[in-house]
Amino acid sequence: MSKKLQSYVNGQWLEGQDDGVMVYNAINGDAIASVSSKGVDFQAALDYGRTVGGRALRAMTSHERANRLKALAQHLMSIKDKFYAVSAWTGATKADSWVDIEGGLGTLFTYSSLVRREMPNETFWLEDGVERLSANGTFIGRHVLVPKEGVAVHINAFNFPCWGFLEKMAPSIAAGMPVIIKPATASSYLTEVMVKEIIDSGILPDGAIQLICGSVGDTLDRLNEQDVVTFTGSASTGQMLRSHPNIIGKSIPFTMEADSLNCCILGAGVEPGSPEFDLFIKEVAKEMTTKAGQKCTAIRRTIVPRNRVEAVQEALAKRLDGIKIGDPAAEGVRMGSLVGRDQMNDVRSAVNNLCEAAEVVYGGSDDFDVVGADKSKGAFFPSTVLYCDQPLNSEIPHSVEAFGPVTTMMPYDTTEEAIELAKMGKGSLAGSLVTADDQEAAKVILSTASYHGRMLVLNQDCAKESTGHGSPMPTLVHGGPGRAGGGEELGGLRSVKHYMQRTAIQASPTTMTAITKEFNPGSEQLIDKIHPFRKNFNEVRIGDTLITHKRTVTEADIVNFGCISGDHFYAHFDETAVADSLFGKRVAHGYFIISAAAGMFVDPAPGPVLANYGLENLRFVEPVGIGDTIQTRLTCKKKIKKDKRPDEDKANGVVVWDVEVRNQHDEPVALYNIMTLVEREED
Amino acid sequence: MSKKLQSYVNGQWLEGQDDGVMVYNAINGDAIASVSSKGVDFQAALDYGRTVGGRALRAMTSHERANRLKALAQHLMSIKDKFYAVSAWTGATKADSWVDIEGGLGTLFTYSSLVRREMPNETFWLEDGVERLSANGTFIGRHVLVPKEGVAVHINAFNFPCWGFLEKMAPSIAAGMPVIIKPATASSYLTEVMVKEIIDSGILPDGAIQLICGSVGDTLDRLNEQDVVTFTGSASTGQMLRSHPNIIGKSIPFTMEADSLNCCILGAGVEPGSPEFDLFIKEVAKEMTTKAGQKCTAIRRTIVPRNRVEAVQEALAKRLDGIKIGDPAAEGVRMGSLVGRDQMNDVRSAVNNLCEAAEVVYGGSDDFDVVGADKSKGAFFPSTVLYCDQPLNSEIPHSVEAFGPVTTMMPYDTTEEAIELAKMGKGSLAGSLVTADDQEAAKVILSTASYHGRMLVLNQDCAKESTGHGSPMPTLVHGGPGRAGGGEELGGLRSVKHYMQRTAIQASPTTMTAITKEFNPGSEQLIDKIHPFRKNFNEVRIGDTLITHKRTVTEADIVNFGCISGDHFYAHFDETAVADSLFGKRVAHGYFIISAAAGMFVDPAPGPVLANYGLENLRFVEPVGIGDTIQTRLTCKKKIKKDKRPDEDKANGVVVWDVEVRNQHDEPVALYNIMTLVEREED
Repeated sequence: MSKKLQSYVNGQWLEGQDDGVMVYNAINGDAIASVSSKGVDFQAALDYGRTVGGRALRAMTSHERANRLKALAQHLMSIKDKFYAVSAWTGATKADSWVDIEGGLGTLFTYSSLVRREMPNETFWLEDGVERLSANGTFIGRHVLVPKEGVAVHINAFNFPCWGFLEKMAPSIAAGMPVIIKPATASSYLTEVMVKEIIDSGILPDGAIQLICGSVGDTLDRLNEQDVVTFTGSASTGQMLRSHPNIIGKSIPFTMEADSLNCCILGAGVEPGSPEFDLFIKEVAKEMTTKAGQKCTAIRRTIVPRNRVEAVQEALAKRLDGIKIGDPAAEGVRMGSLVGRDQMNDVRSAVNNLCEAAEVVYGGSDDFDVVGADKSKGAFFPSTVLYCDQPLNSEIPHSVEAFGPVTTMMPYDTTEEAIELAKMGKGSLAGSLVTADDQEAAKVILSTASYHGRMLVLNQDCAKESTGHGSPMPTLVHGGPGRAGGGEELGGLRSVKHYMQRTAIQASPTTMTAITKEFNPGSEQLIDKIHPFRKNFNEVRIGDTLITHKRTVTEADIVNFGCISGDHFYAHFDETAVADSLFGKRVAHGYFIISAAAGMFVDPAPGPVLANYGLENLRFVEPVGIGDTIQTRLTCKKKIKKDKRPDEDKANGVVVWDVEVRNQHDEPVALYNIMTLVEREED
Repeated sequence: MSKKLQSYVNGQWLEGQDDGVMVYNAINGDAIASVSSKGVDFQAALDYGRTVGGRALRAMTSHERANRLKALAQHLMSIKDKFYAVSAWTGATKADSWVDIEGGLGTLFTYSSLVRREMPNETFWLEDGVERLSANGTFIGRHVLVPKEGVAVHINAFNFPCWGFLEKMAPSIAAGMPVIIKPATASSYLTEVMVKEIIDSGILPDGAIQLICGSVGDTLDRLNEQDVVTFTGSASTGQMLRSHPNIIGKSIPFTMEADSLNCCILGAGVEPGSPEFDLFIKEVAKEMTTKAGQKCTAIRRTIVPRNRVEAVQEALAKRLDGIKIGDPAAEGVRMGSLVGRDQMNDVRSAVNNLCEAAEVVYGGSDDFDVVGADKSKGAFFPSTVLYCDQPLNSEIPHSVEAFGPVTTMMPYDTTEEAIELAKMGKGSLAGSLVTADDQEAAKVILSTASYHGRMLVLNQDCAKESTGHGSPMPTLVHGGPGRAGGGEELGGLRSVKHYMQRTAIQASPTTMTAITKEFNPGSEQLIDKIHPFRKNFNEVRIGDTLITHKRTVTEADIVNFGCISGDHFYAHFDETAVADSLFGKRVAHGYFIISAAAGMFVDPAPGPVLANYGLENLRFVEPVGIGDTIQTRLTCKKKIKKDKRPDEDKANGVVVWDVEVRNQHDEPVALYNIMTLVEREED
């Protein structure tokens, strides 16, 4: 069923205007489709994204965007079988496809909930707190993040046709930036199927995503200073794109992930037969064979104590013997094919290069069994282990990458040597250490972290729940220095910031409050006759302030509070001891001060304020002694509109209050924020 | 007094081995020194930095490094007159020199205190909290930052020979990364003087900083994947360096600040004669004439409502008339010269280019007075205002930069036009708006932030304390997108991270605790017979845990707590109302729960725990009703060693405790951290 793949640009699907490149089923060699972007109007794509897509996304709040991501993930999950069917053509097993399809959709779910939990429900994002820039506080600074006004061009690798674009799309859309997806040609037919479903669903606004199957043409020449490029793929292609004169000339952010020579180290004290030894063998075998080793994060260098080389080789061979290669649809097959025969030839050639410094000790030859498929038509390559005896003396095993089920085993004599070997990869996406010795773990991890984007320590305590050496997690950074491209993706909301501009704003506190929609110290306080706790979420204004009555703290308060709390710390009760302490005299309990403050600002009758569920940033600034008189100021600092959950009767929102307790000398004694849940009228 | 400038490399000072480039006094044209790096062994410099300097810095904790920065700043401040004397040769006024010299030293002070206040006293830095990666919590993730193991090459601009290298050096040293300073040739004689004092002081470890006066030679070819380059200067030079094959090929982080076409907008409603009108005129004139306009952040584009053009032109001319040009040593001179006559010619040529789209309405000609200096010898240029009547129709005023006392005035008709004009700079370091209208401020700032690194809103409320349009602040980011280079410096501790590698670590909680020296939930709890509050800072171990006795919460507790606090919220006292609330039944005060928890975990007699001074991250997870029984776990989460201050009798440190209150069903009811000050034995 050969056909032409389509691109989706400027609101329309269109086929390439020439024959393009034919792509083939990786298992049986059947032609799938031809891929070409000939005829695509790249300028129109950029314009459409920047105007139609960008304006729509920027007009939405971050929570509105997050809700779309969730709805989209739910929709795609409900029709996931379509994607599994096409994924099989890439040579993937069911487990491989799960990582690509459901792992990718999981990333959308994670971003959706992270955004709703941690980002304000606004079109911009305040970062960190107030920077005081002046003695009297009339001039302050804050950092704000706003969406970049361009298009994010996402250039993806062939190995994860779904996850690859989804993990880049999620933070872009969350940030408010439209996307042009450029899948790798070899597996673009799967990306096309999923993007078609996304467009058909109508869940994302027009122009939020576009798809280019085939070459990006002269798109890079047409980018401007508000656009962003991210790239996953080979180091050589990435470097070529990154040095593009227009990228350099306009300082266009370019994030790159390149496959790297990731290592896994077996701890010095791990004995054959111990749980960690078995975990090591399993992990290396799994990383070699998942996706037939076509993962940027796969273990390419297996670093073991010299006296364990034989035991590791033997155990690894035994485990690999059990992993049948063939058509994943056939019974018992646990490793599929590479994505295509070109890739197969590349891997063979890389293994030959590795042989200049290492010898094949397992697999490697053309003499291997394939189940349920014709070896001469599919892109099969056998699991292959090499051994390099003097790895400190050769660059080859640390720089030549066979992007298939291939690893090079290398021995070390001391922990320092193991660390040195890890670093010889010149920058990796992932690294791991299997050990039961936590002190060894601390030393190895902290000594090699500067060369890695992610590191795993595997032992029997975490093995059951470990996500493994090779799996990027949405909440952890994915990327690595040097050889790995120097980029950073995922990492939770960190990657959302890649698609936003951070701007320092300087202004008076009142102006800053108008810009940021968050109360800043020194900003105008709004005081009226209505207690702020009598106002619902819609009614309460940023800056609404209550100045309470006062209360003199007495000896009886301290005694009573000690009795009810059970806290008889000497600073409150022991005049002989406190004289020598930093307080000098008996002082009230800190917890009493904040309790008394609540007694001053709480409005007792039922009202829109449902609960005070949290408190942040409490500092006891000055002690309160017997006879001191305290007063509290409560100011609406910020409001976070929340979506109504199905289990909630009424809509509500979070109101954060800035609280300051002062003494009779007008000195602050306690500063903090409290979080309340407040009823909201539905829109 | 002509001489040869020296470079400091590989632990030695050496003169260039050829005649080099002669640099001249900007006021009188006298030769100052010749500058050449001929003979410098660039590889030796890198090796020395990476080994001797890097190892020494990485062995120090961040607080130890911060203390060195402070000592250095104090030392240099005590001999600042030396620097002022040499700074005068650059054409700087006393006020210009203050920004360069004392502004630069202020950056060291700021970084020193930020690091000690906000970074852990460790050789690495934990970022954010624990990422839960598994259902049962046996596998978790954290992000750690470690110093990069290379050298930071800092390439600086001529306009701030002190501040320029100090603002880059402070975060590098704080991060633990050694520095090679490459000043711009034109003013390198001042940098050399200050670096000599730094080296002579012996305050920084050997190899922590090196200096190359003259060309960097083939240094960029010799960098590796652990090095970092930062650049401040012209866009064209920056782009050339950034696209260097070795920088691209090894993914070497490259931070660039380029001067940009920064704008200042006069608000639509500001009437001539109003306070904001006067502020606008003062700000524009100040930005034109400070450093004779040789600032990357200076106002190049003065955007005013069309009906205010005449008034602005008149008022600006009047103000500029009062700013005398000449030798800053002469009485009444308020603007000095450019850095050299080459620069003077460049500015004249840029003004000529601007004249293709604008007309000179003030200054511009060679016919101007110079006080106390010979105009034919010094590098003087007059304050110059141009006017472009149709700025939306020409790129020239938005792209041609005259790096001197020059601005182009341009009119707008609507706020949307003003926003459009601001963006036509294609990315700026700084932008400003002068207005008394906070709603206009919110609209203009949030609509133009994506094109700016920093934005200022000036009005009469903040004017007195404003640091001005052109001044980068150590705590705010400095840098901008697009034309401005796409870099980011300063911004408080953000820039320290540029010199560190962020690595995601995955492990079991106990292993993670061993690596991070911070207690992670699920990690092994250390329980012995000694109450943790009986241990001093040195004795208490991460993970030390107290499981308290239990307490049943009774009706009397609620009543008594309501009486002592004064908090009679209906959820605690009103059975009729609470039935319909989200609690369903009367519940104890949240503040009672944390007070009772303190009553359970506090050890009353005097001991090493001096005070509980703060509380963070409190969440009331489940309500506690009458009859519920609570118990508290207190665990040492982290320790922050503090230096003894002169006013303190004894050394101490901060111990942060992880607190969890649970009910009889083993459900958490309150989670939080408390901070205590704990006595420490001195080393």
